[in-house]
Amino acid sequence: MTMTSTRPTPVAPVAPSRGALRPLGLDEVQIVGGFWGERQVVNAQATIAHIGDRLESEGWLPNFDRAAAGTLPEGRRGREFADSEIYKYLEAMAWEIGRSDDAALERRFREVVARVGAAQEADGYLNTNFGRPGQQPRWSDLEWGHELYCLGHLFQAAVARVRTRPDADDGLVGIARRAADLVCREFGEGAREAICGHAEVEVGLAELGRALGEPRYLAQARLFVDRHGHGLLHDIEWGRSYFQDDVPVRDAEVLRGHAVRANYLSAGAADVAVESDDAELLDALARQWRTTVARRTYLTGGQGSHHQDEAFGADWELPPDRAYSETCAGVGSIMFSWRMLLHSADVRYADLIERTLFNVIATSPSDDGRAFYYANTLHQRVPGTPVDPDSTSPRAGSALRAPWFEVSCCPPNVARTLASLGAYLATADADGIQLHQYAPSRVATTLDDGREIALRVETDYPAAGLVRVVVEDSPDEAWTLSLRVPAWAEGASIEVAGAQSQPVEPGVARVHRAFRRGDVVELRLPLAPRLTEPDARIDAVRGCVAVERGPEVFALESVDLEALGAADVSTVVAVGEPAERDGAVVLPVRALAIESDDWPYDAHADAARGEIAEVRVVPYRAWARRGPSTMRVWIPRG
Amino acid sequence: MTMTSTRPTPVAPVAPSRGALRPLGLDEVQIVGGFWGERQVVNAQATIAHIGDRLESEGWLPNFDRAAAGTLPEGRRGREFADSEIYKYLEAMAWEIGRSDDAALERRFREVVARVGAAQEADGYLNTNFGRPGQQPRWSDLEWGHELYCLGHLFQAAVARVRTRPDADDGLVGIARRAADLVCREFGEGAREAICGHAEVEVGLAELGRALGEPRYLAQARLFVDRHGHGLLHDIEWGRSYFQDDVPVRDAEVLRGHAVRANYLSAGAADVAVESDDAELLDALARQWRTTVARRTYLTGGQGSHHQDEAFGADWELPPDRAYSETCAGVGSIMFSWRMLLHSADVRYADLIERTLFNVIATSPSDDGRAFYYANTLHQRVPGTPVDPDSTSPRAGSALRAPWFEVSCCPPNVARTLASLGAYLATADADGIQLHQYAPSRVATTLDDGREIALRVETDYPAAGLVRVVVEDSPDEAWTLSLRVPAWAEGASIEVAGAQSQPVEPGVARVHRAFRRGDVVELRLPLAPRLTEPDARIDAVRGCVAVERGPEVFALESVDLEALGAADVSTVVAVGEPAERDGAVVLPVRALAIESDDWPYDAHADAARGEIAEVRVVPYRAWARRGPSTMRVWIPRG
Repeated sequence: MTMTSTRPTPVAPVAPSRGALRPLGLDEVQIVGGFWGERQVVNAQATIAHIGDRLESEGWLPNFDRAAAGTLPEGRRGREFADSEIYKYLEAMAWEIGRSDDAALERRFREVVARVGAAQEADGYLNTNFGRPGQQPRWSDLEWGHELYCLGHLFQAAVARVRTRPDADDGLVGIARRAADLVCREFGEGAREAICGHAEVEVGLAELGRALGEPRYLAQARLFVDRHGHGLLHDIEWGRSYFQDDVPVRDAEVLRGHAVRANYLSAGAADVAVESDDAELLDALARQWRTTVARRTYLTGGQGSHHQDEAFGADWELPPDRAYSETCAGVGSIMFSWRMLLHSADVRYADLIERTLFNVIATSPSDDGRAFYYANTLHQRVPGTPVDPDSTSPRAGSALRAPWFEVSCCPPNVARTLASLGAYLATADADGIQLHQYAPSRVATTLDDGREIALRVETDYPAAGLVRVVVEDSPDEAWTLSLRVPAWAEGASIEVAGAQSQPVEPGVARVHRAFRRGDVVELRLPLAPRLTEPDARIDAVRGCVAVERGPEVFALESVDLEALGAADVSTVVAVGEPAERDGAVVLPVRALAIESDDWPYDAHADAARGEIAEVRVVPYRAWARRGPSTMRVWIPRG
Repeated sequence: MTMTSTRPTPVAPVAPSRGALRPLGLDEVQIVGGFWGERQVVNAQATIAHIGDRLESEGWLPNFDRAAAGTLPEGRRGREFADSEIYKYLEAMAWEIGRSDDAALERRFREVVARVGAAQEADGYLNTNFGRPGQQPRWSDLEWGHELYCLGHLFQAAVARVRTRPDADDGLVGIARRAADLVCREFGEGAREAICGHAEVEVGLAELGRALGEPRYLAQARLFVDRHGHGLLHDIEWGRSYFQDDVPVRDAEVLRGHAVRANYLSAGAADVAVESDDAELLDALARQWRTTVARRTYLTGGQGSHHQDEAFGADWELPPDRAYSETCAGVGSIMFSWRMLLHSADVRYADLIERTLFNVIATSPSDDGRAFYYANTLHQRVPGTPVDPDSTSPRAGSALRAPWFEVSCCPPNVARTLASLGAYLATADADGIQLHQYAPSRVATTLDDGREIALRVETDYPAAGLVRVVVEDSPDEAWTLSLRVPAWAEGASIEVAGAQSQPVEPGVARVHRAFRRGDVVELRLPLAPRLTEPDARIDAVRGCVAVERGPEVFALESVDLEALGAADVSTVVAVGEPAERDGAVVLPVRALAIESDDWPYDAHADAARGEIAEVRVVPYRAWARRGPSTMRVWIPRG
């Protein structure tokens, strides 16, 4: 395992030492407004503080104070993995400080780090739930204890800090280093041959190793990855596939089991495969990604078909009404896909990231940034009841966004993702810059050969399909600007520096040119709403269509059915193509007039039908923002 | 609350003091062979002994020995509700002894009763999991402790015993009486105002009250029923609907929450409503039954759409692949329906009982009676792996029948149902006899006015549609023989004593006649296989058809796809009507040729199709009896 690059690592969550594409960090890419810019503002101004308040009031952060005061286990609050939420909160703050340099946030960050650090034991061990008199011994419940999982999140927080504030003296990096050293001692070669029931330490250790130039951490991450699939964890009701301990990573055909665990593990496996140049493992991960996307992923990009075990189902088992599609699985899927994109430059990975960002990540938080979806159903059959903003909800029990959950992994996961989102927009290679996600932004970097490039991206995407790239600085020599053309963008075109517009195919549009300052490249993505049909094998949505527009999946909500005189979405069928009317997307539908309420298996095929009416459909992420409603993404074709 | 009948109570699980129909007991109805007779033999010769062996080897029955020896809680085995399985086992043995008078079984029964009785405390309390030093206090966990639930099953066992062997000196009735008296003291008016998190004590107390002529038990059952829906139990992740503590029984519109709990509670509520002549409550139960059948019941009669909470879903939420359809919910549904049938004489209740018997109860046990389905999926996507006959399975984790479960409610529930099945075949009223379920059998009773009637039923049903009723004894005066004509039996006909055949409509065919010995009534039920379409609101099976034949639902199994050269059931579509060929039911199908394995939301509607071939479909209950396979009940229409 060798570090081949001598460049400073980017201010980004992932910095492989090799790969087809080089990530650009928050110092090189800034989102300056638009769809994601607005969400970054809400994240900074409301969500991060909301999380901090809840971590205090729920007692999860005070657990660290009690640990330092020696008053645990009495009064410990929260689930066994509650520590991890503090680490994700730290990670979100670190990225946000790096992005906006907020002094108050910096003070809060240091305060929390100090409280965390005070709970660390002399040998580096850090967990408020294990190891003290009256608690279970350390590492005694690897299936469910989440000790290594929590540390993985600590490591990612430390990575965020060292990359955004490499010279800070707050101590977080030292805390992480001491804990990582302990993990290597306890779980290294010849020591305890074990893994954690929830993957995360792999990806955390790998990146900490990269960030600190510490190959031991990468080696330990590799050990953990390689140990999966050998039955080191006890069997459970749902099988060892739940924690991906059923089949070795390099032998698996598809993601399975708990969808967050599966994606976190895959992300960590990608990291160790890249660092050890393990082509076989990378091929296995690419194969698993492809099959998972083809057979086990919702139209929204969401993953996870089971409520019970928060897990992937079998191939083609994608029920819209019992979709779990956990927000955190969306975060994990982006983590996995991003690493594969950097490795391969295959824009299919960026396509899925975009789909997941607009339809899972953007769906979760409320407009005010203080309530969240944990699970993201594609079909809501019963309107929710408003959620008390001071309450704590079961994790997937609400049809409306909830302020906090007994298992509250999702809010800080959204927060850290939004705070670092700039790092997922663009990459560089030896020959130029690649734009993967479109947002009003500035992109500036120095290529490996020293050439400096600066771009400004202007767009109202996804409201409008025009992406305008203005060259602000360019070397005299030709270089290549690559623009992702999403898979759905049939009919896209590109116009370079005022020349005639040229059609471009989905994939990558490459402009190789000796750019001059002020040159403009305009990519036009067609945004007419379109009907989408599912593969015939996805039984749960047979005979249905969905509406999409650009990267956005749309949904039919009961509040938009007034034109039809229909009360809910369960008896409406689509009878035509969607269209745009005054900026809204509409779909012609009819209400089925079904009178029968008897044994329901007697062919009601002759049900009379109502008048055709055009009703509004809204972006899926917008659903339930106008109050309780019923909703469906997949609409029966009439 | 008054007992209005002076007749001896029938040898049957349910003996209301009033109602439209009077149940006939095992002394009045005997199944003498055929479909159910064979299953009763396997139940008697294998299943009951298998259950007894497992209750010993799992340590659940020895828990009572440990309780008597004062060695609890150390070494207690099984879940908190394990006691209940011993009581259902006792109930199954009691009915079987009543049916077949097996001397060895009688010895075993007495042995088990003695061991149970030795664990009863002086004040009547009986539970191996609570109340001792080192255990939780009695009644301290009403949400999950199942103490009253267990006692409800004890009471049903005692009912079975007192009705089959009213003069036995084994002591079970005394054990139950002491426990019931304790329950009345602890939970009566003015005492602890509480309910159990798992309904069952209601139906158990009500019937024990009937069996022993003890109105206090009926009054206590009524209290428990009336207390539901007032939030006496703590809220939980899935809501109080899980234990039907969200809405009072008389106010509810539909069954909801845990499907077994919901049906057991409804059965108990029907009992107390009948005994207190509570027309409002009976109307509410009838309404809930109708809506549940119309909107929340599988084609098989199975109930319960969620794995996670073993619960009903929302209206129309009936996924075939994640169907839970717990075997015990089928038993509970029969308990509820049977009580409503006795009350109302509405044969729709008997229709559902028949459907549930043939497609849930008969599906669960293996041919050898030593393995069972706990959950009954309608779509198996991945073939199961053979289950070790000495293993203990998670409750719903297997695609193949399993010998025992960590939660093993279903095997003894099937056993007690099969052993008492004769009691569900026929009823009487002032004017005659009603036949509800068709099996080779003898039916003999004395009407209220003293007239004696005896019948012999000859049939190969459901293999053949001819039901031949031979009058073996009849008074001279006219009386009415009523024969249920199932809802699916369009085109049925009846022939009375050799007269010309007459068409009869689904519902009830009534023959009022001065029968003579030797008179024969022949009911012909049309058994041509038929295609069934679902209500348009059942999203999960849109565009699909199922094959039915008589009361049997059919399924397509992968092992029958050889003719098609297709490996599994996921890409097969139905392209015609089912037919019978050489005694088998066949369906014309085609295999879809789908090559794509990429993003699955790009309209694969043009997929080429294979040749049409007739493939065999088998009764759903027969699935996975030829080894591991994939299976589906609902087949896409091509």
